[in-house]
Amino acid sequence: MNRIRFLQMIFSCCFAFALTTANAGATKAAPKKPPRAGAEIIATSPASDWRDVAPTDLLVMDLPQGQVLIELAKRFAPAHAANIRTLAHQAYYDGLAIIRVQDNYVTQWGDPNGDDAKLAKSLGTAAAKVPVEFSVAYKGLPITKLKDVDGWASVTGFVDGFPVAAEPKQNKAWLTHCYGMVGAGRGEAVDSSTGAELYAIIGNAPRGLDLNITVVGRVLRGMEHLAALPRGGINMGFYDKPEQYHPITKVRLAADIAENERPRIEVLKSDSKTWADLLNAKRFRGGWFVHSFGHTDVCTTSVPVRNKP
Amino acid sequence: MNRIRFLQMIFSCCFAFALTTANAGATKAAPKKPPRAGAEIIATSPASDWRDVAPTDLLVMDLPQGQVLIELAKRFAPAHAANIRTLAHQAYYDGLAIIRVQDNYVTQWGDPNGDDAKLAKSLGTAAAKVPVEFSVAYKGLPITKLKDVDGWASVTGFVDGFPVAAEPKQNKAWLTHCYGMVGAGRGEAVDSSTGAELYAIIGNAPRGLDLNITVVGRVLRGMEHLAALPRGGINMGFYDKPEQYHPITKVRLAADIAENERPRIEVLKSDSKTWADLLNAKRFRGGWFVHSFGHTDVCTTSVPVRNKP
Repeated sequence: MNRIRFLQMIFSCCFAFALTTANAGATKAAPKKPPRAGAEIIATSPASDWRDVAPTDLLVMDLPQGQVLIELAKRFAPAHAANIRTLAHQAYYDGLAIIRVQDNYVTQWGDPNGDDAKLAKSLGTAAAKVPVEFSVAYKGLPITKLKDVDGWASVTGFVDGFPVAAEPKQNKAWLTHCYGMVGAGRGEAVDSSTGAELYAIIGNAPRGLDLNITVVGRVLRGMEHLAALPRGGINMGFYDKPEQYHPITKVRLAADIAENERPRIEVLKSDSKTWADLLNAKRFRGGWFVHSFGHTDVCTTSVPVRNKP
Repeated sequence: MNRIRFLQMIFSCCFAFALTTANAGATKAAPKKPPRAGAEIIATSPASDWRDVAPTDLLVMDLPQGQVLIELAKRFAPAHAANIRTLAHQAYYDGLAIIRVQDNYVTQWGDPNGDDAKLAKSLGTAAAKVPVEFSVAYKGLPITKLKDVDGWASVTGFVDGFPVAAEPKQNKAWLTHCYGMVGAGRGEAVDSSTGAELYAIIGNAPRGLDLNITVVGRVLRGMEHLAALPRGGINMGFYDKPEQYHPITKVRLAADIAENERPRIEVLKSDSKTWADLLNAKRFRGGWFVHSFGHTDVCTTSVPVRNKP
């Protein structure tokens, strides 16, 4: 193993820490006792710091390239979540397609033949009109706040594992458009989203979209199947030709899948000490890192998901 | 055209504005005279607000899937830029490969056969040791500051079109890891990068990497050819098998290409009124947008690049 290969391995090692674990140690404003490494924090976390995902909140999207798991944010978008459940239950999304991939922005899916008469009928018992769910009341929201300064909102943090921003003085909180968040496309009218057309964020967090569109959930697994697709053309990433579409095999609610065939995953509780420790390990780095900012932000780290032991 | 198709088109329209242009109007703290739409700002910008890229600073990377153009940040990493120029001039990168794609993080390229003896020789007249270039002096730096609050640094802004963060009290400024920024992989030793192995950011800005590694430039064109690749495995995105590698056809410095075959592009000057107007149009939205934050950040918008008229 010569020098360059060695470098590459070290680099790979340390980049992994950067993403998912982080080491102990710091260069400034570090806690007296350096945080433990992220991998160690997770490995030694109590089972009680992890939670199941309710089968009624878990969308299982099967694509030829792999499976995508999405948790519905029922606390933030209950009406959209209900409609998406109904659509999935009715197999609405089956055979639809990914029709748009715009670099550093969104992957979007829905009915590519929106102009045929079957569409309206295909909504079945799902609602064709769903209320705006851009924000919820801040008061009473069980938010685990980040102490870190954020330029977009006076409060940021996590609720039920979802990244959240808030303005307490306005009694308003909302899901923020971090990587992997899923929203419901809308038209000019703010209440024109139904959940029939969805998008996932595949680039740097476009937080200017917050409070302008209903965010409905988060990809827990399989982002690589949405993010690694060929980008569409200059028409905002919409594919120009039907042969560019990526088919959706099927989308099911986990509750509609036989129990022994459901994905067996669990999500770290974002009000747990384990999550607080992980965030701190991101603020104060060590090992390969020679500089720590003593800072993180709501979109830099996402709440871990793992296979159920 | 039925309702859903209509929605989709509107949605596409407005997402495009979100990304590249932004409309006039605002919901709070808006300027008395609403900013013009981004597309109009660009269309009416004076030619003098745009600049050429020096051929000695423009890397032209040809991949089977398309061309990637990278501007070297000579003000921030002069020694790395010089080494990369030498490597490109010597055709060092030709036939090497993209060896790692880690979702929401980096695409990395270099010599996949780093453990054969040819590598050291292949550096030719390029330096095997290059000084650390993590930051430069803040004093005297021609930075166009953002007025927006940033959690990672007390000052952010743009220099020569590159996103920059700074701590004036420490007389320190650095390129920040926004989407599309290019860095030089290093090992444990801070001075172990040479530019022979490079990476580009393909996800949410991992700003915790700042001041830990030398950033050498920015992708001006062709990010989609680096970002849409299949993600590698659990070993931090490194491809497990050589057949997964994506070959690099060739990398040339534009200065080494016949003048009439060089890419004809230009970059908006980041100290121009046009750029200031575009940033303001991002802070205060209109049209499809019903909420404006009156805010932007250093990684949300990148300085426009266009074909030379």
